[in-house]
Amino acid sequence: MWMETKAEVEEASRSRASLSRRVLSSLLLCTGDMMHLNEYMQDKSFVLQLAVWGLRGVTRVILANNPLSGALILAALYWASPWQGLLGTLGILVSTLTAVVMGQDSAEVSGGLHGFNGMLVSLLMGVFSSAGDWYWWLLLPVCLGSATCVFLFSGLSSVLDRWDLPVAVFPFNIIIILYLLCTGQDNPYFPQYPAVPPGVLGPNDTKLVAVEVIRGIPLGVGQIFACGALGPSLLILGAVLLYSPLLAIHGLLGSAVGTLAGLSVAVCHDSLYSGLSGFNGALGCMAIGGLFFTFSWRTHLFAIASAFLSAYADIALRNLLGTVGLPACSWAATLIATLMLLLTGSLAAYRIPIGQVMAPEHNLRSRSQWAAGNNAEQESTDV
Amino acid sequence: MWMETKAEVEEASRSRASLSRRVLSSLLLCTGDMMHLNEYMQDKSFVLQLAVWGLRGVTRVILANNPLSGALILAALYWASPWQGLLGTLGILVSTLTAVVMGQDSAEVSGGLHGFNGMLVSLLMGVFSSAGDWYWWLLLPVCLGSATCVFLFSGLSSVLDRWDLPVAVFPFNIIIILYLLCTGQDNPYFPQYPAVPPGVLGPNDTKLVAVEVIRGIPLGVGQIFACGALGPSLLILGAVLLYSPLLAIHGLLGSAVGTLAGLSVAVCHDSLYSGLSGFNGALGCMAIGGLFFTFSWRTHLFAIASAFLSAYADIALRNLLGTVGLPACSWAATLIATLMLLLTGSLAAYRIPIGQVMAPEHNLRSRSQWAAGNNAEQESTDV
Amino acid sequence: MWMETKAEVEEASRSRASLSRRVLSSLLLCTGDMMHLNEYMQDKSFVLQLAVWGLRGVTRVILANNPLSGALILAALYWASPWQGLLGTLGILVSTLTAVVMGQDSAEVSGGLHGFNGMLVSLLMGVFSSAGDWYWWLLLPVCLGSATCVFLFSGLSSVLDRWDLPVAVFPFNIIIILYLLCTGQDNPYFPQYPAVPPGVLGPNDTKLVAVEVIRGIPLGVGQIFACGALGPSLLILGAVLLYSPLLAIHGLLGSAVGTLAGLSVAVCHDSLYSGLSGFNGALGCMAIGGLFFTFSWRTHLFAIASAFLSAYADIALRNLLGTVGLPACSWAATLIATLMLLLTGSLAAYRIPIGQVMAPEHNLRSRSQWAAGNNAEQESTDV
Repeated sequence: MWMETKAEVEEASRSRASLSRRVLSSLLLCTGDMMHLNEYMQDKSFVLQLAVWGLRGVTRVILANNPLSGALILAALYWASPWQGLLGTLGILVSTLTAVVMGQDSAEVSGGLHGFNGMLVSLLMGVFSSAGDWYWWLLLPVCLGSATCVFLFSGLSSVLDRWDLPVAVFPFNIIIILYLLCTGQDNPYFPQYPAVPPGVLGPNDTKLVAVEVIRGIPLGVGQIFACGALGPSLLILGAVLLYSPLLAIHGLLGSAVGTLAGLSVAVCHDSLYSGLSGFNGALGCMAIGGLFFTFSWRTHLFAIASAFLSAYADIALRNLLGTVGLPACSWAATLIATLMLLLTGSLAAYRIPIGQVMAPEHNLRSRSQWAAGNNAEQESTDV
Repeated sequence: MWMETKAEVEEASRSRASLSRRVLSSLLLCTGDMMHLNEYMQDKSFVLQLAVWGLRGVTRVILANNPLSGALILAALYWASPWQGLLGTLGILVSTLTAVVMGQDSAEVSGGLHGFNGMLVSLLMGVFSSAGDWYWWLLLPVCLGSATCVFLFSGLSSVLDRWDLPVAVFPFNIIIILYLLCTGQDNPYFPQYPAVPPGVLGPNDTKLVAVEVIRGIPLGVGQIFACGALGPSLLILGAVLLYSPLLAIHGLLGSAVGTLAGLSVAVCHDSLYSGLSGFNGALGCMAIGGLFFTFSWRTHLFAIASAFLSAYADIALRNLLGTVGLPACSWAATLIATLMLLLTGSLAAYRIPIGQVMAPEHNLRSRSQWAAGNNAEQESTDV
Repeated sequence: MWMETKAEVEEASRSRASLSRRVLSSLLLCTGDMMHLNEYMQDKSFVLQLAVWGLRGVTRVILANNPLSGALILAALYWASPWQGLLGTLGILVSTLTAVVMGQDSAEVSGGLHGFNGMLVSLLMGVFSSAGDWYWWLLLPVCLGSATCVFLFSGLSSVLDRWDLPVAVFPFNIIIILYLLCTGQDNPYFPQYPAVPPGVLGPNDTKLVAVEVIRGIPLGVGQIFACGALGPSLLILGAVLLYSPLLAIHGLLGSAVGTLAGLSVAVCHDSLYSGLSGFNGALGCMAIGGLFFTFSWRTHLFAIASAFLSAYADIALRNLLGTVGLPACSWAATLIATLMLLLTGSLAAYRIPIGQVMAPEHNLRSRSQWAAGNNAEQESTDV
C-alpha cells in the first residue's frame, strides 16, 4: 500500500495541482468587479437581481464593487450591531428601489450606484440617534432620507458630468447634515447625540497610549461604515482585500496617515483611538491610489498627499461644523478626491475616465494593454 | 306685457349668451401670461411700459407672469402695510431701472425678470428693520440692495445657463443675508430684529390649535411676500388663481405639505400658525407642479415630493442660520427646485426648456399640440 | 569759458535730451508687464529664472505682473517685519517649486501664477500666529500650506475655465481658513490670535479721528499684503505705480470707497484706522477698473460699484466668519470680481479674455489698435 507507482504519484499531484488551480481560478472569479456575474444574473428573478445590486452598493461605500465583499461587509455590520445592520439593509433597499421607480439609468442601478448613499445615511441616522436600538420610529426618516439620496445623486450627476466627476458620497453628506439640522438635539420624536469637535474637550491631559493609536488604524477603515469595533473592522478590511489587495493597502496607509495628521495638530486622544481621525485619510488615499488613477509610483505619492490633505481638511471641518453640533462625515475626503480628479499636470495623465473605472488591478492591466496597443499602432503608422 | 313672443325670448337669451361669452373671453384675456399685451404696449410711453414690467415682476415672485395679478398682489401688500407696499414698489422700480441702465437683455427686462428679486429684498429689509415704519433712511439700503440684485442676476445667469437653470430668487436670498450680516443686530443706523430658529424656543408647552394650523395654510402663500395677514394673503392667492388655477392649487397643497412636515418634527407652534412653515413647501410645489414641468399625475407626485423636501430643508436651514441670527428666506425651495430641474430619469421627460416656460395651462396645451404634431409628423414619415 | 558757441549749446542740449530720452525709455522698459525680460531670461540659470518667477508672483497678489515691482514689494515686507518677509519668500518659493514638480503648465509657472497664493497663505499664517516672530516650527505649516495652494489652483482652474474666469486668490482664502480651523485658537503647537468681527466690540464710544481715517486709505493698499505700517504701504503703492499708474489710482480710490462703506454701517474705528476696511474695496476696484476690462468711463463707474459691493460684502463676511473666530481675508473682493467677470450687458463688451490680460495701459493701447484694425477691415469689406 505504501508503494505507489510513479504514474500514480504524478497523477495525484497533477489532480491536486488542477484542483488548486481550479480553486484559485474560482477564487479569482470572486475578486475584482465580478462583471461575469452580470451576464449570469440577466434572466434571474427581480429579487435576486435586487440583492446583487444592493450588495454591490454596499461595497461602493468603500470604493469597491463586488457582491461577495458586500456580503462580508454586511455580515460585519450585523456582527457589530444587528440594529445597525438592519438600518443599513433597509437604506440600501429603499434607495435602490426608489431609483428603479424614478426611472434612473439601469446600468447605474445594477452597478449599485444608487444604493450606497442611502445605506450610509441610514447607518449614520442610527449612530446619532440617542433613542437607543430598536426605536422603530427611526425607520421613517431612514426611508425618507434614503429615497432623497436618489434625488441628489441624479441632480448632482447632471452638474458634475461636465467635468467627468463622480457624485461619490456628496448626497450622503448633504442629507445627513440636513437631517441632523432638521431634527436638532432636543427633538421630542428623534433625539440625537451632538457631535463633539475634536478640539473642544480642552487639552489632552492623559498620556497617549501607542497600542491604542495603532489599534485605531484598522478601526479607521471600519469607521467608513460608522463601525467602531475591531473585529468587524478587520472583516471589512478583508472584504476590501478580496476585491483588491492594492485598495486594502491604500486604505490602511491612508488611515495611518490620517492618524499621523491628527497627532501633528494634537486632536483629542479619543478621536485617534476610535479611528475617527483615520477614515477620511483612508478614503482619500484609496480614491487616488488605484481607483480613479492608474497605479504607479507617482500616483502613489499623490495618494499619500491626498490622505494628508483629507485628514487635515477633516480636522478643520470637524472644528467648524462642531461649533453648531454637526459631524464632518466624509466631506473632507469627498472634496479632496474631487479636487484631485480636477488636477491638471502630471497626475492628469494617469486619470481613468469615470465610466471605465474598475478594480485597481484591472485598471493596471487594461492600461498596459492599451499602452501596448497604442505603441503598436504608432509603430504601424510610422511604417 | 307678460306675453312675449318666442322670437323675443330667443333673442334675449341669445344676447345674454353672447354677453357672457364676451365677458368670458375678455376674462380669459386677463389670465395666463397675457402675451398679447406686449404687442399692445410696444408704442406706449416708457413710464407705462415700466409699470407693466414692474407688475409682471411682482408676480414673478410667486412664479406667475401677469400684470393684472401683479396689480392685485401690490394692492394686497399696500392693504397689509402701506410702508411695506411702498418699499416693494421702490425695490421693483429701482432694480428694473438698474437693469435698463446696465444694458441687460430687453426681453428679460420686459418680462419682469429683473424686478422680483429687488422687490423681495426691499420687503424683507422692511420686515427685519426694528426702526419701525416710515424710517426714511431705510430707503438707502433698499435702493442699493435692489440695484445689486441685477448684478447677481446677470452674473448667476451666466453660470446657470450651462444647465438651462433659472436664476430664480438666488439673488434675493444672497443679498438679504449679506445685508443682515452687514448691519448686524445692534447697528446704530439700521437696527434689526434677530431671526429666531424654529427649534430654539424650547419644547412647545401649549396645546396645538387645529384652526390656527389650518389658517396657516393660506398664510403660507402670503408669506412668500413676507405678508402675515389673512385678508391680503387670500387676495394674493386670488391673484395666482387669476394667472393659473393649477398653480394656485399647488400653492395651497405645498403650504399644507409644509405644515405637515413642520408638525412631523415638532417645530414651534408660532411657525405653523404664521405660515412660515408652509411657504417654502408652497414655492417648491408650485415650481414643479405645472411651471417648469408639463402637468401630469407623475409630475404631480414629484411636486408633492418637492414640497416635502423643500419644507424639511427649510427647517434644517432655519436651524442652521438661526444659530447666527439669520433667517432661511426661500433658500430651501430655491435649492430644491433647482435640484428637481437637474434630475435625470422619468421627470426629465416632462421638463420644459426655461425659455418656453409659461402658465401651466398653456404648457399643457402647447405640449399636447406638440405631441400631436410629432405624431402627425411620424405618421407622415411612416407613410 | 563763459562764452559758448551756439553749436556747443545745441550739442549739449541735444545730448541732454538724448540722455533723458534714454533714461525715460529705460524707465518705460521697467513698467508694465516687462514681457521683453522673458526672452532675455530664457537661457539663464534655473535659480535666476525662479527668482523672476517668484518676483512676478509677488506682484500677482496686487493684480500686477512686474518683477521690479515685486522686488520693491518684497523690500517693503522685509522693512515692515523681517520675519514676515522671510515667510512670504519661503511661501512663494515652495509653491512655485511644487508647481514645477507637479508638472503644471510652464507658461503659468513663469508668469508667477503659482506663487502668489502660497505667499499670501504664508504671510497670513505669520500674522495670525500668536507664538511670536522667529517661531521656527511655523515653517512646517507654511511649507505644507503653500504647496497645497498649487493643488487648489490647478483643480479650481479646471472648473473656472469653463467660464473663462481666473482662479485669483480663491486657493489662499480656502487654505488659510482651513488652516485656522484645523489648528484652532488654543493649539499647543500652533497658537493663534482669534479674528475679531468688526461689530463685536460694542458701540464706538470714542470720537472718529479724521486724520487717522485718511491715513487708513493708503494702509488699505498695504493690507493686501497683511502689512499695517504706513511706510511699507506707501512703498507697495509705489511698486503698483511703477507697474501701472491707472492701477495705483484705482487701488487708492477703492480703498477710499471701502472706508466710506465702513463709515456708513458704523464699523469699529480700529478697522478704519488700520486699513482693514479698505483693502477689499481696493482689490475689487483694481480688478474691474483696468485689469480685466478695458478702461473707459463706463468701466470706471463699474469699478466704483465693485469697490462698494466688495467693501459691504467684506463687512458681512467678517461678521459671519467672526462668529466662529475666523477672518474674512479677501473672500469678498474675490467673489465680487468673479461676479463682475460673469456680468452680461454693457460691461461684458469691455471684457478682456483672461489669457490676454496685461497692464491696463497696454490693454487700452491694444484695444484701440484692435478696434482700429476692425474698422479698417470693416471699411475694406464695405468697399
